[in-house]
Parts: sequence; structure tokens; C-alpha cells
Amino acid sequence: MHPDREFVSARVLGATGPRADALAVEAPLEVRIGGKAVAVLMRTPGHDDELVAGFLFAEGVIADADELLAVDPVAPNVVEARLSVARRVPAERGFVTSSACGVCGKQSLADLEVRAARVTSPVRVPRSVLQALPAKLRDAQPLFARTGGVHASGLFAPAGELLAVREDVGRHNALDKLVGWALAEGRVPLSTFVLLASGRLSFELVQKAIAAGAPVLAGVGAPSSLAVELAERFGVTLAGFVRADGLNVYAHAERITE
Amino acid sequence: MHPDREFVSARVLGATGPRADALAVEAPLEVRIGGKAVAVLMRTPGHDDELVAGFLFAEGVIADADELLAVDPVAPNVVEARLSVARRVPAERGFVTSSACGVCGKQSLADLEVRAARVTSPVRVPRSVLQALPAKLRDAQPLFARTGGVHASGLFAPAGELLAVREDVGRHNALDKLVGWALAEGRVPLSTFVLLASGRLSFELVQKAIAAGAPVLAGVGAPSSLAVELAERFGVTLAGFVRADGLNVYAHAERITE
Repeated sequence: MHPDREFVSARVLGATGPRADALAVEAPLEVRIGGKAVAVLMRTPGHDDELVAGFLFAEGVIADADELLAVDPVAPNVVEARLSVARRVPAERGFVTSSACGVCGKQSLADLEVRAARVTSPVRVPRSVLQALPAKLRDAQPLFARTGGVHASGLFAPAGELLAVREDVGRHNALDKLVGWALAEGRVPLSTFVLLASGRLSFELVQKAIAAGAPVLAGVGAPSSLAVELAERFGVTLAGFVRADGLNVYAHAERITE
Repeated sequence: MHPDREFVSARVLGATGPRADALAVEAPLEVRIGGKAVAVLMRTPGHDDELVAGFLFAEGVIADADELLAVDPVAPNVVEARLSVARRVPAERGFVTSSACGVCGKQSLADLEVRAARVTSPVRVPRSVLQALPAKLRDAQPLFARTGGVHASGLFAPAGELLAVREDVGRHNALDKLVGWALAEGRVPLSTFVLLASGRLSFELVQKAIAAGAPVLAGVGAPSSLAVELAERFGVTLAGFVRADGLNVYAHAERITE
């Protein structure tokens, strides 16, 4: 299952006959804590440590980078997350995820409650800066350029400077990897930054943005109703359909300047 | 959380000022069996019975439509699935899902194994017919037309006739709803039909196609490496980047005629 590669070549039959193509790798990563499997993430290999860190952070299993001592390879596609603290092990609620999953492991509605602080940040972002971000993100997506089959999340300064990009077949993984990177860099909470997602804006992406303390979440696609409700409630500026020629603001427009 | 609506209107701030927009509703549906919560599906309300049927079928909890006696509303966003058989209740493995999840609830790699028969079907589909399907699907997506924020799955006859479409914020839900519909119509296994998904082709979508016995799965987006491997192994024809002017075949090209 190519646990160590971001893409593989494949033979495809196109309109003009057989040719070589590149496929984004999707492979499961089993995460264990204390030897017990707690999650399977369907992800694109690469930046696995960041993925595990960002995922455990979003799930509230670790509160900061220091609480994750190491992510040790145990077998192909299996890692052990060593924690510095005896945390409630998420296996108790059987939490799990997929290439596009953020509420995974929640077995009942009560588990969906977001336990996080409201995001407060005086950051302001000009509309024109936001509109320029998708092109910058795309230029920083080598895997998408090769495969056309991955999502990305980017972290930007309010003036539009790109700080980091992560790609993955799963859009939630891409954001988890990015937050995992930011955790290691000591940049969480992301109070002065802008997050951009390459796709649609679901409940789960907003949830992860809140957990990371990000004041602005922008997306190339549409937000869902629940994404907007959650952003409104937790103080996150939510912009959708962000393109060179326009964008819509769905929540907390006060941070967008004209 | 609008448990009964497919879309809601929202006030957005666009480039030319505030205006009304429509958002696709994303709301959780808690599924219970025997009074016990077994899954939370982040879905667009509508066709909930089909969703529950298709989901339980894909997960192997029911083997046919008759085994699901009823889907009874218990509370807002909560339903009880009444089964005619005493099935292994999936709560034991804590299975769960999100708006884009198909491997949810799998806590270890062993759970990812696909236990299904290889799809055998003599069906043949002309390349030109496949290329015409995305436009037909889009014309049958009223919710996408309103919101720009939902996925769809369509079921087609090999000559290109559209039989049914289901939309949802989650692409896996859209397919579960469609299979749920087909189950109720007595059309499963889908041995003589073509499935079209509006987005990328992940492992989970191929898994669901195999469970439903569909010989051809086409998608507007790219397949992942694992999607191609699984399709190859289980006899499913997999076509990606399907557009009016072309498509790529990644597995079992023998069913595509020129």
C-alpha cells in the first residue's frame, strides 16, 4: 500500500490510448497509544508525525506539542504515539477517522460538542489579500500538480505571506498536518494567522480551526450550514468561494477590510 | 441545526455588499440500534431512511432491504434502526462516520479488509456514454444549483439513462443514499449499472461500490492509489477525470468500449 510514498505511477487508458499517470497515495495509518489501536487515518504518507500531532491536538488528547513525546514507527502503516501525560485514551470512545473525516469516533451527539474557547483576535485581513491566497496555495502544491487528486491547507500571515502548506487525499488530514507543523514550531494558538482550505468548509474543518485558535478560515468551496453556525458562535471569520475575483464572508466579517 | 431542511438561507457579505445566499444543511444524524447509539452521520437531511439503509448495508450490518424493518425517528437528529435479525451491533467496534467518511469506526487495520465478492458483470459501456454522464448528473442536482456545496452520486443504465441521483454534503452519504434507494427498489446488486460520483474517488467509495455489486464506478475527480488497487482486485471498472472531452480508465478497462 506504498506506506512511504506520496504518489505512485499508474498505467491509465486515456482518450488517446494507454499512458503513464501519477496517483496520490492513500494508505491507512494506524495510531496506537499504549499499544492499543485508537485510530486509523486514511492519509497520504509524508509528514506523519505532524498528522498524528495535529489529529491528537484537535481531538483534545494532547494540549500542546510537549505532551507528544514521539511518534514511533511500529510496523508499516502503524505508529505508536508516546505521550508525556496519562490522557484519557480515545479508544474508550472508539475514535477513528478517514481521509475526509473530522467527527469520526463520535458515537453520539453529545460527543459532537465543541469544547474550546471562543477565538478572540484583533487581526484584520484585506479582502484583496484573501482573494490572492488560492493562487498562492495552488503554486505551492507539488502533489496536486502531479496527481490532481489531493486537498491542501495553507497557513498565511495577514499580509498574505505563505508560511506553510500541507497536502493530503483527506482535507482534514491536510489541516491536521498543518496544525501539527505549527505546534512543533510553537505557533499555536494561530491567533494572528489565516488558514486556507482548498475545498469546501465543513463543520469539522471549523472545529479544527477553533481548536487551533485561528481567527480566519477561508475556503475555495462552499461552507455548510453547521460550519457557519459554529464559526459564528466561536468567533471565527469564515470566508467561502474565495477566488481571484471575489469571495463571500459568512461569519465575523469585522475582520475583513475593504 | 435544521434537521429537516436541505438548505437554509444566510446573509453573506459578497464583493458588492450583503446579500442572501443558500447554504447546504449539514446536520448530525445519530443512528441507534437496540437503543444504543452506533453512529453519527454528518449529513444533509432528506432521504434519511435511504441513508441509514445504505450505510448499514455498506457496513455489512444488513444483507438486504428486508433486514431493515424501519427507521424510526426518536428525537430530532436521532433515529432507531429496527432490524429483523439479531446482527452483530457495530457499536462493539465503535463505528462512526462524518460527512465524508467511509472507513469510520475502523479502529485497526484488520477492520479495513474488504469482505465482499469480486464483481462479475458482462456489462459494457461506450466511452462516449460515460463522458456524457457528468453533465446529466449536474442537471439533476437542484441542491448543488442552489448552494454550490454538495456532492452527488448518480445511478445510470449502460446506455446513459439516469435512474436516480442523491445529493449530500458528504460524498459517501450521497452514495449510501443512492444504494439505500436501490435496495428499496430491489435493484441491488447493481450488476448492470454505472455509478457516477461528483468528486474524487477514494478507497471508501470503491468499497461501497463493491458492496453494492456495481461493475463500473466513474468519478469527475481523481482516484487515489488505494481506490485503484481495490477496484483492480475486486473486478470494478474505475474511470476518473470523467468530462465531456475525455476520461481516464484506471482499472478493468475491458468494460469500456470505444
